[in-house]
Amino acid sequence: MRYDSQTVHDWVQQLYEAYGFEAGDAQAVANMITYTDLHGIASHGVQRLSMYDRFIQAGKIDLHAQPEIVFETPVSAVVDGHLGMGQLIGTFAMNTAIQKAKTSGVGIVSVRNSNHYGIAGYYANLAADAGLIGFSSTNSNPGLIPTNGIHSFLGTDPIAFAMPAKPHHFWLDFATTTVPQGKVEVYRKLEKDFPADWVLADGTRPIHDHNAPELAGIRQQSAPVGLTPLGGFTEATGSHKGYGLAMIVEIFTGLFSGGALSPEISDGQHAGTSHSFIAIDPAIFGDSRTMFSRFDDFLQQLRAQPAVAGKQVYVHGDKEAAAYADRKANGLVIDDKTFAELVKISQRLQVDVPEF
Amino acid sequence: MRYDSQTVHDWVQQLYEAYGFEAGDAQAVANMITYTDLHGIASHGVQRLSMYDRFIQAGKIDLHAQPEIVFETPVSAVVDGHLGMGQLIGTFAMNTAIQKAKTSGVGIVSVRNSNHYGIAGYYANLAADAGLIGFSSTNSNPGLIPTNGIHSFLGTDPIAFAMPAKPHHFWLDFATTTVPQGKVEVYRKLEKDFPADWVLADGTRPIHDHNAPELAGIRQQSAPVGLTPLGGFTEATGSHKGYGLAMIVEIFTGLFSGGALSPEISDGQHAGTSHSFIAIDPAIFGDSRTMFSRFDDFLQQLRAQPAVAGKQVYVHGDKEAAAYADRKANGLVIDDKTFAELVKISQRLQVDVPEF
Repeated sequence: MRYDSQTVHDWVQQLYEAYGFEAGDAQAVANMITYTDLHGIASHGVQRLSMYDRFIQAGKIDLHAQPEIVFETPVSAVVDGHLGMGQLIGTFAMNTAIQKAKTSGVGIVSVRNSNHYGIAGYYANLAADAGLIGFSSTNSNPGLIPTNGIHSFLGTDPIAFAMPAKPHHFWLDFATTTVPQGKVEVYRKLEKDFPADWVLADGTRPIHDHNAPELAGIRQQSAPVGLTPLGGFTEATGSHKGYGLAMIVEIFTGLFSGGALSPEISDGQHAGTSHSFIAIDPAIFGDSRTMFSRFDDFLQQLRAQPAVAGKQVYVHGDKEAAAYADRKANGLVIDDKTFAELVKISQRLQVDVPEF
Repeated sequence: MRYDSQTVHDWVQQLYEAYGFEAGDAQAVANMITYTDLHGIASHGVQRLSMYDRFIQAGKIDLHAQPEIVFETPVSAVVDGHLGMGQLIGTFAMNTAIQKAKTSGVGIVSVRNSNHYGIAGYYANLAADAGLIGFSSTNSNPGLIPTNGIHSFLGTDPIAFAMPAKPHHFWLDFATTTVPQGKVEVYRKLEKDFPADWVLADGTRPIHDHNAPELAGIRQQSAPVGLTPLGGFTEATGSHKGYGLAMIVEIFTGLFSGGALSPEISDGQHAGTSHSFIAIDPAIFGDSRTMFSRFDDFLQQLRAQPAVAGKQVYVHGDKEAAAYADRKANGLVIDDKTFAELVKISQRLQVDVPEF
């Protein structure tokens, strides 16, 4: 089933107004959720509304919190999110980084006491929209099992990077685990087995069965099950590299901000998430017009590379751009379970379910 | 066989003086080579001297080139290496980044027209020695096959990161391919098969046999064989993430510097390598003493994590620190083939081979 993106956007906005968010804030959340589904990232769009609903119901998200700059220099800032909605805090922090980059060339902003902020790529793309290079990352409750370990200890700790390019931004957005938590959830909803070593039990047994009983513990740090780092669970496949990338994320998020590190975050508690945002003006390296045009040529060379039969060499952002064109024309793809969740939340909040 | 590190250091210094390098430059190269072997990274220590010898003989490395800052702002610089020795250019560039970070909080330096610069981690650790956070990366002649592709197109594009910690720096240093080119060479020298999908032929066939005829083409961009990105060669295992990390390296090295991108580099030509160096003063996020002490605690928690039988959870830099203690006490580990190469170079340059 396909759902008109503008109608979904307005529905989400109404839900967020019904929670009690300011109209502008509800609109900003709806923009970000719809942006995510429009770009084909179903795991982090409306699929996430039931999780946010749980957080809002539990009082974990403060509807009226205002993000605050608690420390800054011309090239940096630390923001306290005061446990507000992650999307609102994230947008504030990336805009701060962008302003600093426009003045000083570089802006690095670390955030503490936030909540789940959606896709990291949204913020990196805000920088690219402003003609800058952008990075964003966030920590999370534990999901990643460090190499040789048994329990998850670090977050899935995604890193996003964006840079202006034609015909669309170069956009790289990835969990430092082999796949994000949301992808495992989507496969379980679709009753599909995992095609690779995404989930590891007892530190040695990859789980592929989407019905495996071990999966019940996947969000519990005490259970001997969790996600493999990018690079799998052996050093021969590069496990220590994904684990190391997650460490860099912990440093730029929890450590620089003085906020929670991933092992200190749990879904049920008031231990906020930490984020990082970086904007860089390429003009600090000289003539950025030449740089951008050379980059466009380089991307075209990549797309023209010989590929294995039936496939092609993509540039990061190509698939998201194709999904955007499709969703804009044909509507968002929302699975039945997720749609049912939205209906249930709407009923509780007394918001009309729109006709599609 | 073990070889006293100070004796090896002085030997390397004499060789570089015999090539015609200034005494201070010869000492700097010897420091860096010995540093690498002392930390157990045999693939990039004296093992690399025969490759540098080939480059010097071929006139690819200009012995008297002086690195030059051709563009700068308070937070950035572009350095032209004028095709000098990569180690000397890299040290100059990281010191420039460190000075800028001390003044402005952040220093980002991109380098063009350099040569192979040894291990990226050496430069990241220079920043950590100065109390800062350091990054370094470099591009290289092509080695990495982009996801769905058949030919190598990007470099092995390593990324290094270091941060001060106790009892030793946190130090992460990894190729964005599953393994660096040097690791494949070491396995072939040892006549060992590859334990994972490091090498890919025809875009679909992982090569494990160290004697496979396809390996003859591994350094030729025209041959349908090359290295898999970190994450392997399928999207299910995260191939596009390693490929994406290499793209970030290309942007920070070749693109920002206006120098060669990896597909433009080949061993035999005067198309210099491009590097990137970043130093960040953690004090731009507030009280760095608290940050460092919290980081030390975090690393200790990681080391104390339950591990699979017979293994342990390492922190990045632990293995290098253990190797350093061992090599300092017992001497460097140099394989017979490499030692014979050094003897041959010494004879040609009329440098005495020291007694061990």
